[in-house]
Parts: sequence; structure tokens; C-alpha cells
Amino acid sequence: MGSEVEEIRAEIADRVRAVREKNVEGLLAHYAPEVATFDLVAPLRNLGAAAVRKRVSEWFASFRTAIDYEIRDANISAAGDVAFDHHLTHVRGTSQSGDSIDMWFRETVGYRRVGGRWLVTHQHSSVPLDMNGGRALLDLRPD
Amino acid sequence: MGSEVEEIRAEIADRVRAVREKNVEGLLAHYAPEVATFDLVAPLRNLGAAAVRKRVSEWFASFRTAIDYEIRDANISAAGDVAFDHHLTHVRGTSQSGDSIDMWFRETVGYRRVGGRWLVTHQHSSVPLDMNGGRALLDLRPD
Repeated sequence: MGSEVEEIRAEIADRVRAVREKNVEGLLAHYAPEVATFDLVAPLRNLGAAAVRKRVSEWFASFRTAIDYEIRDANISAAGDVAFDHHLTHVRGTSQSGDSIDMWFRETVGYRRVGGRWLVTHQHSSVPLDMNGGRALLDLRPD
Repeated sequence: MGSEVEEIRAEIADRVRAVREKNVEGLLAHYAPEVATFDLVAPLRNLGAAAVRKRVSEWFASFRTAIDYEIRDANISAAGDVAFDHHLTHVRGTSQSGDSIDMWFRETVGYRRVGGRWLVTHQHSSVPLDMNGGRALLDLRPD
């Protein structure tokens, strides 16, 4: 089981590198064709890697600067050909409109090993909401 | 692997029943002591079953009526002693202040089998946000 955890850790590091390089193809290579995503933004869910490609392409293009992208406290569970991890993600940069972005969110990622390769079959990204008023909480920090 | 998927399906059905009965102890019996939760509301994360107990107790008490609670499209992956599932959750009822609640959200749940029993080690619940204005989207419906 230890080796599977190390393999997932390497997968995460590869994805972080791809985001920092704004490398759409490098990032998409980690996703299963049938991936189901619960994204930061609407709709409730997306099915298929094409939705990830569209979203990632638009997100990368929305930055004027490089994306300072960091994953903290990755907690990985793996057995056989199934794994999941949860972590906190920190994004910093400057948008095309000049806004400074500095945001933490939560992510849970599910994996399946297919033909010896781990692929992301599920990704859930979110921020909490404030029930009083329904505002999304974009300025939270980890403890 | 089929039997593990069926076991997780039974775990989900048990949890749904506990919520519908507002049975805090029945629900908590499914959670590992060290569970890490990314909840609908702040903070970014909680560690430990005590946080789940507090949140669930308050949530159950916030309803004047029974909680009409339904899980749709549970997609389960399991191997050995590790599993995860993702699904959409639909909650309906009337709050203590008389507000009608009818809300869909997304959930991803991670499990570990300990001593022959599946326990929830991770739970991530959220709604998407509207990036323009930062509003949480509480009124989305599945396709």
C-alpha cells in the first residue's frame, strides 16, 4: 500500500507542475475520459474530460501572471486500483482585469488505476458558504 | 469488488435512514474518530467526529419538520479496504423559522474498512459559487 500512496503523491506533484506551467495537455493527461467533476463554479456536476479541458483552458487564460499554485496537507488513501486524496489548495496571481487573487479552497480527488496508470475519475473543488446571506467564503485561511 | 460496492451502497442507505429519523447516534456510528470533513459551511475543514456530531445535532434541530433527504446517482469505487463515492443530495423540509428548504448539493465520501466495518474517513459537501459576485448557488437542480 505504501507504494500506491507514493504513486498518488507523484501524480499530485505532476498536476501541480502542469498548473504552474499552464500546461493544459499535461494536466489533462491525468484525467479519465469519463471523469465526474464537482467544480468550484456551476453547474452542480460535469461529466467527461472535455468539460475539464474547457474549464482549465479558460481558468489558465484568466490569469495575466503565472499561477502560484500550492497543495497543502494531501491525505491519501489507496488500495489495489482505487485511491482518493483530500487536500487544501492555495492559488495566487493576478487576473487579466488586474485583480489580485489569493484564495484557498478544498479538494477531494478520486482515482482508478487503468492499465498501470492512475487516472483521476472524480474531482470535487469547493469553498464553504455563509448560511446567513448565502455568500461564498472566498477569503478563508487554514488554521 | 462487487460485494464491496454493495456494502458501501448499504452504508449509504443506512446513513440516509439515520438522517430521515434525525438519529444522531445512528448516523455518527458510521464515522471514523479521525474523520476529516469539508462541510457546506465554514471553516475550510474540520477534524474529528466531534465536529460532525455538533454540526449534525444543530442541523437536525434547525428543522421544524422531518427532513426529506434523498441521495441520487451514487457512484461507488472500492478496492480492498478503501472506497469512495460521489453523489447528489436533495434536502427538503421546513426550518424552525418557517422557511421552506429545497436544496441540492454535491457530496464526496471516503471510506476505510477497519475491523471488518466500513467507516467514513472523509466527507466533502458543497454547492458551487457564482464567480461574479461571490454568491453561493443554493437553488441549482440536476440536469
